[in-house]
Amino acid sequence: MLMNTHEARLDALRQELKSRGLDGFVIPISDEHMSEYVGAYAQRLAWLTGFGGSAGTAVVLTDSTLSPAAAMFVDGRYTLQVREQVDGKFYAYESVPQTSAARWLGENAPKGAKIGYDAWLHGSKWVEAAQAALAARGATLVPVDGNPIDAVWQDQPEPSPAPALVHDDKFAGESSKAKRAAVSEWLTAQGLDATVISALDSIAWLLNLRGTDVERTPVALSYVVAHADGTADLYIADEKVTADLRQHLGNAVTVKARADFVAGLQTLAGKRVSVDPDNAVAAIFETLKGVNATVVENRDPTILPKAVKNAVEQQGQRDAQAIDGVAMTRFLHWLSVEGPKGEVTEMSAAAKLLEFRQRCGDLRDLSFDTISGAGPNAASPHYRVSDESSLTLVPESVYLVDSGGQYPCGTTDITRTVWIGNGTPLAEVKDRFTRVLKGTIAIDRAVFPKGTTGSQLDVLARQFLWSVGLDYAHGTGHGVGSFLSVHEGPQRIAKSAGGQAGTAQDLIPGMILSDEPGYYKAGEYGIRIENLVLVVKREFPGADGEYYGFETLTFAPIERRLVDTALFTADETAWWNAYHARVLQVIGPQLSGADDAATLEWLEAQCRPF
Amino acid sequence: MLMNTHEARLDALRQELKSRGLDGFVIPISDEHMSEYVGAYAQRLAWLTGFGGSAGTAVVLTDSTLSPAAAMFVDGRYTLQVREQVDGKFYAYESVPQTSAARWLGENAPKGAKIGYDAWLHGSKWVEAAQAALAARGATLVPVDGNPIDAVWQDQPEPSPAPALVHDDKFAGESSKAKRAAVSEWLTAQGLDATVISALDSIAWLLNLRGTDVERTPVALSYVVAHADGTADLYIADEKVTADLRQHLGNAVTVKARADFVAGLQTLAGKRVSVDPDNAVAAIFETLKGVNATVVENRDPTILPKAVKNAVEQQGQRDAQAIDGVAMTRFLHWLSVEGPKGEVTEMSAAAKLLEFRQRCGDLRDLSFDTISGAGPNAASPHYRVSDESSLTLVPESVYLVDSGGQYPCGTTDITRTVWIGNGTPLAEVKDRFTRVLKGTIAIDRAVFPKGTTGSQLDVLARQFLWSVGLDYAHGTGHGVGSFLSVHEGPQRIAKSAGGQAGTAQDLIPGMILSDEPGYYKAGEYGIRIENLVLVVKREFPGADGEYYGFETLTFAPIERRLVDTALFTADETAWWNAYHARVLQVIGPQLSGADDAATLEWLEAQCRPF
Repeated sequence: MLMNTHEARLDALRQELKSRGLDGFVIPISDEHMSEYVGAYAQRLAWLTGFGGSAGTAVVLTDSTLSPAAAMFVDGRYTLQVREQVDGKFYAYESVPQTSAARWLGENAPKGAKIGYDAWLHGSKWVEAAQAALAARGATLVPVDGNPIDAVWQDQPEPSPAPALVHDDKFAGESSKAKRAAVSEWLTAQGLDATVISALDSIAWLLNLRGTDVERTPVALSYVVAHADGTADLYIADEKVTADLRQHLGNAVTVKARADFVAGLQTLAGKRVSVDPDNAVAAIFETLKGVNATVVENRDPTILPKAVKNAVEQQGQRDAQAIDGVAMTRFLHWLSVEGPKGEVTEMSAAAKLLEFRQRCGDLRDLSFDTISGAGPNAASPHYRVSDESSLTLVPESVYLVDSGGQYPCGTTDITRTVWIGNGTPLAEVKDRFTRVLKGTIAIDRAVFPKGTTGSQLDVLARQFLWSVGLDYAHGTGHGVGSFLSVHEGPQRIAKSAGGQAGTAQDLIPGMILSDEPGYYKAGEYGIRIENLVLVVKREFPGADGEYYGFETLTFAPIERRLVDTALFTADETAWWNAYHARVLQVIGPQLSGADDAATLEWLEAQCRPF
Repeated sequence: MLMNTHEARLDALRQELKSRGLDGFVIPISDEHMSEYVGAYAQRLAWLTGFGGSAGTAVVLTDSTLSPAAAMFVDGRYTLQVREQVDGKFYAYESVPQTSAARWLGENAPKGAKIGYDAWLHGSKWVEAAQAALAARGATLVPVDGNPIDAVWQDQPEPSPAPALVHDDKFAGESSKAKRAAVSEWLTAQGLDATVISALDSIAWLLNLRGTDVERTPVALSYVVAHADGTADLYIADEKVTADLRQHLGNAVTVKARADFVAGLQTLAGKRVSVDPDNAVAAIFETLKGVNATVVENRDPTILPKAVKNAVEQQGQRDAQAIDGVAMTRFLHWLSVEGPKGEVTEMSAAAKLLEFRQRCGDLRDLSFDTISGAGPNAASPHYRVSDESSLTLVPESVYLVDSGGQYPCGTTDITRTVWIGNGTPLAEVKDRFTRVLKGTIAIDRAVFPKGTTGSQLDVLARQFLWSVGLDYAHGTGHGVGSFLSVHEGPQRIAKSAGGQAGTAQDLIPGMILSDEPGYYKAGEYGIRIENLVLVVKREFPGADGEYYGFETLTFAPIERRLVDTALFTADETAWWNAYHARVLQVIGPQLSGADDAATLEWLEAQCRPF
């Protein structure tokens, strides 16, 4: 019998915890690879609580008579959503970073409690922080042997059995052999024997393989141990390994069963092994320490080369954008016709956009769940539409759509906010839209010296909202992968502190970033305008060093009816005109068929200069 | 016989080091209070090497046959100056933060060496870093018993015997008793018994006293131990204590001999004592640890309240600025008449400016040595004019003057860059000047939410230079004291990393900052435009939180002949016009005498709108 209510699931978990002698358990959204997006089998938090966001944690105390007996921890993106999806009768709502599961446990765990955690789902820093917080209550954090949720989740999906796929060098731009040689050189220079690579996108990048095991991110469930001699061990389920893949991997990569990963780690006894504490779970550290390997903490050596796209990847991204821009343009034109009729819904719009994307090119997946938000739903920056939540796009209102595709040549991510209807937008909405747009333009036009971080640029995007007492509670830009994660580190444009803070990573030519300021008026509307940009060198006569700027990658028209040109400087008007000239240049020739005649005409109207 | 050459002084130091069995010695610019500006007795680096900058360190190895046998460490401000003042035959030039004395010692100290340092002149973090760097060479860092330079510096000045002065509550705005009560409350809340306050400006602020012991900063050489019961011990040379001061301090402050400070620290045996590692030298930590006091590291509790000026201090700053602006205006007018004649020199200009300041108000001192830079000298951002370096202001060139006064009501700091002559400035110079000015304006006009740091705003000042491949190698703004240090922490507007990095301190209403972007073309000219600004609250209808902005404090005309108005936005033109209307309003009425008729007429011309 399936447990069909979240209450029943919570009861079952508490029974399980009781039977194991645990006083509580921590449930993050995570997998053994510390992935941002996780496979269906690892969606334990959603199964337990109904929460559908991409980041969050629950803590459940075994004794349901305690008050509070359970809590949900989410960041500013999900403040509204968690209250809609998770029952406040069973879970207290807590905001991070103001509080955290660790701190909450330190205040609310019963004195002397044993709180369980799954060492395959948490980083070692988290474990240390939680241990310290619990110690103050005389309580302890204990690793579980098998996740208690898995014990009660009767219809838990199996991890995906899908085959791993070869990512052709014509898209990767560099062979796996060359990438492994660079890792080997780094290991040797650091006096290390091996490094454990457990982040799925790092593995995919290093071995030039892809997969379909995780929704929205084309990776294959596996682990890698890369050795100083340039060889590597790939731990992966047998059924995923095709003859093609085996040939692609060659002799220097030994394919081993994924179930043998722990045993494989244990063969590193006595070696000097590099592990990235931000990308490897506590269990990996514990296993290595258990066999007296010397664990050296370093950033995963694939992270920086993965972020700095080579010329082939850069061109692939441009190609992906050109395709994706056609889908967006057809969609926006379609919406301009259908929207005012008052029958389009958030769900039907997202479905239509998917259809346009599928028609355009070799779409393998979306790069994330489409954010299709009408009116007040768009005020939730990371809103995820469902049948229950889907609103009709009411004429004379704004609609926000944030979406992207996974193409073998590149990963896209674009947000447009448009006016539905034929009337005149409210002055307030135009003002806010224009301020957001001025921020998007300011980042796009930024020039900065070598060594500059994204945090230093962040204010350029916010200044026009700040000047009227407004802001947005998310970062300005994230890194983007090449047919990989749509959120890829280490670079970031964000405030220097706070929940989604920027990093100390400086921006390097070849890095791709999103440029996506926004504005959200709770209960009314949301605005965001997002293009992807590429860090490129900029030459100036007499420059006092190396300077960089951004090449715009994303081309699709921006809603001109929402622009208050009185707020534009001459430079901003020039940017707008040049951008739309380029949109027409990139997208126009792809709309030459008779079917697209109306779309082309519409596009030309959108792209005429101000 | 005096040693009149730096070579002879270096030889004498090496003899002294040899006699003590040391293989080297570190010479910072510092005193027992980690002051930025130090008394003449503590100018050991200048005496030894001839270096006249305000920040730098030398390392001397005892064996002069080593190569390198000594090195000078300075930051980007002093790259040019160190080469002019310090003989490269004896000292290698090193740049911080790229290298540091500690790192250099780790690479260049003889293996197994004993390197001496004066624990009264270094912070404990420095000591730890240097010990670690030396450990790698099997070398050790050893505290000296008495500074070896003092042993060979025959005409070393005595510390100043000048009396300490009462800083009246009518300027301080808050009694010392109230300030001590706040410190006492903090100590009690933290479970601490006492705190050692050794920063001279912190002592001056806490006890509402001032002095004349250090040039340019009106402080008195002393130490304070503040206790949890609201009492304090002031360690100060007897000759400095007047009857007035004793009465002002009252019964709760016990005056003790400065020489008894170490003995006083030793009476804290067994207590919990707060010390600020950024403001207290290693010797204080060592003394306390030596008697088993529990040393708790905290920020000096006076630093934040000192930085956040109360209403009386804010008004005092406005009053000081109004006086200072008249002196600047008379000077700039005088310069507009005399400059083109080709006879004004950097020295005579600085002297004339001092004369105008002395004539205007109750000037107690300059707030720092006037930077009076013509042509290429101004390309050194922290250039200090001397008889040897002084250039004549050549007609048809730019001249930079950065100066300030210490008035009982406030400390000023202003930079203006002006065109000397009646011809037309080069387009390049106007372009650079206008970009710098746009940066000054952008900071002045900034609006930002509560929690924003100066680092987040820094790019606003640099963006217009960056956009043509140029930058400046110094911070954008520093805190300013109230009749105290012209450089006062903890707030700062600067890049988030690097030699003069910003801090994690958010900007709080009441803080005063300088706003001083610049541009320097080596060998040709330097441009800087500086006003002081006050952080104030800004109200907006519908704001999503608390927002702040800046009130401009400094009023003196900016060189209109160097502005390329084609580079101005409408907002910038409006700022310029409003600023100069206010300059005329603040300064004009003070120029009502017959003597000032020509100055007033000139000022009116400067202040007419664009």
